[in-house]
Amino acid sequence: MTARQRGGRAAQAEERREAILRAAMDVIAERGYRGASLAAVAERVGLTQPGLLHYFPSKELLLVAVLEARDRWDTAAVPTQRRGDWRLRHLEQLVDYNASRRGLVQTFTALVGESVTGADHPAQEFFRQRYSNARAVFTEILAAEFGERLPGGLTPDQAAPLLIAVLDGLQIQWLLDPEAVDMTAAFRAFLDLLGTTEQASR
Amino acid sequence: MTARQRGGRAAQAEERREAILRAAMDVIAERGYRGASLAAVAERVGLTQPGLLHYFPSKELLLVAVLEARDRWDTAAVPTQRRGDWRLRHLEQLVDYNASRRGLVQTFTALVGESVTGADHPAQEFFRQRYSNARAVFTEILAAEFGERLPGGLTPDQAAPLLIAVLDGLQIQWLLDPEAVDMTAAFRAFLDLLGTTEQASR
Repeated sequence: MTARQRGGRAAQAEERREAILRAAMDVIAERGYRGASLAAVAERVGLTQPGLLHYFPSKELLLVAVLEARDRWDTAAVPTQRRGDWRLRHLEQLVDYNASRRGLVQTFTALVGESVTGADHPAQEFFRQRYSNARAVFTEILAAEFGERLPGGLTPDQAAPLLIAVLDGLQIQWLLDPEAVDMTAAFRAFLDLLGTTEQASR
Repeated sequence: MTARQRGGRAAQAEERREAILRAAMDVIAERGYRGASLAAVAERVGLTQPGLLHYFPSKELLLVAVLEARDRWDTAAVPTQRRGDWRLRHLEQLVDYNASRRGLVQTFTALVGESVTGADHPAQEFFRQRYSNARAVFTEILAAEFGERLPGGLTPDQAAPLLIAVLDGLQIQWLLDPEAVDMTAAFRAFLDLLGTTEQASR
């Protein structure tokens, strides 16, 4: 095989992987976490189940890849050079967007709940890293925008884990009782409390 | 059977139920969510598995009863006549206490994650009710203590769902990375932000 052929095969495999992830997202959107079986995803993307297992050896690893892809696609829209307040407002839009994709939020919540049950769970390392990165990134964004203290009084490294906790915790309440819980309004109230919204509207 | 015999049997069944719940808590503390099988709990309490199934027809229903019992026992220590600020500080102590009972927190997080996956999950109705009650109770406590606005600026019914979201979200981060996340300190920072701690130290 020539180098060009190898490059072509790698690109083809990458394309196929992306097609599987898009198909999995569609299946999740339509049928939720439980309905997103490997069989359903394989059928959607026109693969046999062994063919799908070649790319993703288990349902858990496929779902981890779906959640990674969502993070990648969601943040791709955010210019890295923009100011921190803009990125916090983007986060508010993201909460609103999540309210329109219930199956994906359900999948996230169910998988993170499974992952805490043991160090051998295939998603645990992904989530540990994801939260560790998220705390570091939010701390950095908040420090760049507000310096040592946010207007509400917290330091950036106090605010970051709370910001993430509020996002996760509101999703649980909203999934269980969408009529009673308005995720976007509740998250905006939390940003008001941090004092980041006053800053943004200056 | 006489009325006295029937009463005696009901009391005996109630005692047996409580003994099963205590045994289940011990097993959860030692072995975590996954280790808390019906077989392990039956063995601990000296019942056959069919004997245990007579009281709790499934692992999910046993775990729901364990979480209900925890809520009951945790709040039994709080005099209902005490002021709201005292109850918020009790909540801070409860977060600290939870940091010493990892298996139970893991069980809560795993079961709530499962419960959002479908209306037919045996724990979904329990959690929906639990969150609905918790939002109402916290709103009432905060309104009694602070009136229409908390010192930090939120209304009681804005603060209540956020308070619960922070509790749940911090548990997730702490379960995944106990070295990196100090639940008690983070929760105290959130109470500072709400402004309830200033009030309490007056």
